[in-house]
Amino acid sequence: MRQASEVTFVNIGQLWMRPGQVIDGPVFIKTVQGRVRSIGPMTRVGQVQDAVDVGGRAVIPGLVEAHTHLVFAGERANEFEMRAQGVSYEQIARQGGGIRSTVAATRKAGEQELFESGMNRLDRFMAMGVTTIEVKSGYGLDFEQEMRMLRVIRRLNEAHPLTVRPTLLAHVPYGADRKEMVMDIAQRWIPEAAKTGLAVQFDVFCDAIAFDFDEAARLLRAARDAGLGLRVHAEQLGHTGISKYAASIGAQSADHLDHVQEDDIVAMAGAGTVAVLLPGCSISMGTRNLPHIRPFKAHGVAVALSTDYNPGSSVTVNLPLMGSLAVAYMGFSYDEAMAAITTHAAKVLGMADTAGSIQPGRPADFVVLDCADFRQLFYEYATPHVASVYKNGVKVYEACGSGHGRPQ
Amino acid sequence: MRQASEVTFVNIGQLWMRPGQVIDGPVFIKTVQGRVRSIGPMTRVGQVQDAVDVGGRAVIPGLVEAHTHLVFAGERANEFEMRAQGVSYEQIARQGGGIRSTVAATRKAGEQELFESGMNRLDRFMAMGVTTIEVKSGYGLDFEQEMRMLRVIRRLNEAHPLTVRPTLLAHVPYGADRKEMVMDIAQRWIPEAAKTGLAVQFDVFCDAIAFDFDEAARLLRAARDAGLGLRVHAEQLGHTGISKYAASIGAQSADHLDHVQEDDIVAMAGAGTVAVLLPGCSISMGTRNLPHIRPFKAHGVAVALSTDYNPGSSVTVNLPLMGSLAVAYMGFSYDEAMAAITTHAAKVLGMADTAGSIQPGRPADFVVLDCADFRQLFYEYATPHVASVYKNGVKVYEACGSGHGRPQ
Repeated sequence: MRQASEVTFVNIGQLWMRPGQVIDGPVFIKTVQGRVRSIGPMTRVGQVQDAVDVGGRAVIPGLVEAHTHLVFAGERANEFEMRAQGVSYEQIARQGGGIRSTVAATRKAGEQELFESGMNRLDRFMAMGVTTIEVKSGYGLDFEQEMRMLRVIRRLNEAHPLTVRPTLLAHVPYGADRKEMVMDIAQRWIPEAAKTGLAVQFDVFCDAIAFDFDEAARLLRAARDAGLGLRVHAEQLGHTGISKYAASIGAQSADHLDHVQEDDIVAMAGAGTVAVLLPGCSISMGTRNLPHIRPFKAHGVAVALSTDYNPGSSVTVNLPLMGSLAVAYMGFSYDEAMAAITTHAAKVLGMADTAGSIQPGRPADFVVLDCADFRQLFYEYATPHVASVYKNGVKVYEACGSGHGRPQ
Repeated sequence: MRQASEVTFVNIGQLWMRPGQVIDGPVFIKTVQGRVRSIGPMTRVGQVQDAVDVGGRAVIPGLVEAHTHLVFAGERANEFEMRAQGVSYEQIARQGGGIRSTVAATRKAGEQELFESGMNRLDRFMAMGVTTIEVKSGYGLDFEQEMRMLRVIRRLNEAHPLTVRPTLLAHVPYGADRKEMVMDIAQRWIPEAAKTGLAVQFDVFCDAIAFDFDEAARLLRAARDAGLGLRVHAEQLGHTGISKYAASIGAQSADHLDHVQEDDIVAMAGAGTVAVLLPGCSISMGTRNLPHIRPFKAHGVAVALSTDYNPGSSVTVNLPLMGSLAVAYMGFSYDEAMAAITTHAAKVLGMADTAGSIQPGRPADFVVLDCADFRQLFYEYATPHVASVYKNGVKVYEACGSGHGRPQ
């Protein structure tokens, strides 16, 4: 990817830099070799070598998507309609639908097919303003298949302009011998993923339909010992207490948390574990209860938002919409919603210093909106507001105007 | 607008024609002078003069958006955040926010400004697959201002490729003398709008913060006598029974209906009044209760879905997302969701014979999706799926691919 040596973005109408810090324009951002060099009012822009005129629109950091299951084959449209008719997620899962149907389709798919559909999905995220994204394995469920998924994720990171962060996910028990699978994950999957760098984080789904508390705790310890960052699918369908345990051994995030309890939150606060809330699941699952930001704020836990993009329980790439749902139902302010899909999401990925904010010295990853006020992104929900996306100072996406439907 | 004399769409992977009628491909649609001439399997396509190869993707009717307040100035982003902090819509309205703040901004705006922002909003709807759209007045609230809004709507219909259907809306009482305003609407607004053709339908908001039952009933009778089609904002914040009354005098739709009662539905069934449900309000308003399709189906009432696009209580142009919310929360099947934003929405506008379905003799208004199965539009929610839009056989919108973010 070409890096412009020096580009200055001028006439920025509003700049959301990081939580609580929004500058009204007109301001400029000077970038050198793909990094932010300086930021200031237009009155002090001085000599400009190569200018991009933003025309008074708002600029925000490139969005950070911290939790996806983006590599998969097959679709599960029928399940969405089944749930509408009253069949539960657990029932569908126990009937061999759900995750298991995606596992079957993904195992059958060729590596190239997984790579190509992954590239297209990354394009869709990019059009939503995302510049950094986490992708999990977890539809392989044996050593060879999980490593294959991680190799696809590595290829995506190499081929696509977005930064793709790989996570090894122990998704659900599979096969005849559950105990043996847990041992295999601890003794082969995790060490191999860590040694080869195919994953930088490890995640485990702990719930009644997934791994139990003791299994998940054991796997988290193994991953910690292997030097991987720790994540956990926690307190989603019921309460297990795994979020508290994960925090106690230094997890970077606990995700879902629909049934989180106060002592879990206290533990997360003590450890600096970020809460990742996934309101998009509510639509795909047809549920109405969304966790509120209040208890997390009360204890000083940073909160991120993510799509949880996957073919069953959350089928959307629309990360800004997660911010809209958070303002609508979860007590978020606009600033908290923006922080949750930028700065706090970067912290989840251990990238607090390289993504999720606009600051001198940081990569010039940002989004030019089509409006002058960043709040519009959440207020006018599910509406495209991304005008262009820059990764390391280079334009990687631009929306096309329709020009009032002139015949094309 | 240029009309291609004869164009044949070939290799359609799936064709949703009208409720309950979905053909699996490959099929063709032959259009002549902007109308559908014939539909059939590819094996019988015969000689083709001018072909558009759809490449196995799904084709659906151009979407019909039956309820919008698209012409306005000003924005109300602050109210969305206020509601998140617990301030109610009624409280905001009583404090001079809500509709009244939009009225103030709209009155101040020049006609050209209203026209230009309207054109841009129509573009956004077109990008969502909409080819026919209703637009209401209602932010003028006196004779001159309401007629000015209707003139803007007429200009939009003339200038934009979408079909724009104008509705005169009696939105809320305004000014010192409420009685006098109602009289003015009945004796001047309605006759003038009908006589000039500036409106084809009349709508009234009947609720505790708007017109009361007797006022609304009187206005509906005046509009009926003037020959306008009848609509009503009914049973939104509470129950008034206006939907039952409107049905009794032949209303084409009753809209909102969050608090509808069974005898209202029975009356609507008897009169062929369509129920227009507006689930997008729930997000902008932060509410969780959405009406279920069950009672309407039980009595044979056709159900349409709409965004209710406006700057306060429903700030989105994403009509397909209304279908997703309906499947997720309101018991709709995929077929019912598609019918609700095509065939049934056309019926609301009195356009059952010219919009909302794909049939020989009808205008060739349709949408090519980027996928082979129309269900994807709702299942993968809030995600752009519109590849191209045709109005009277002519392409008026085409999505642009990002090409994996090659520097642009």
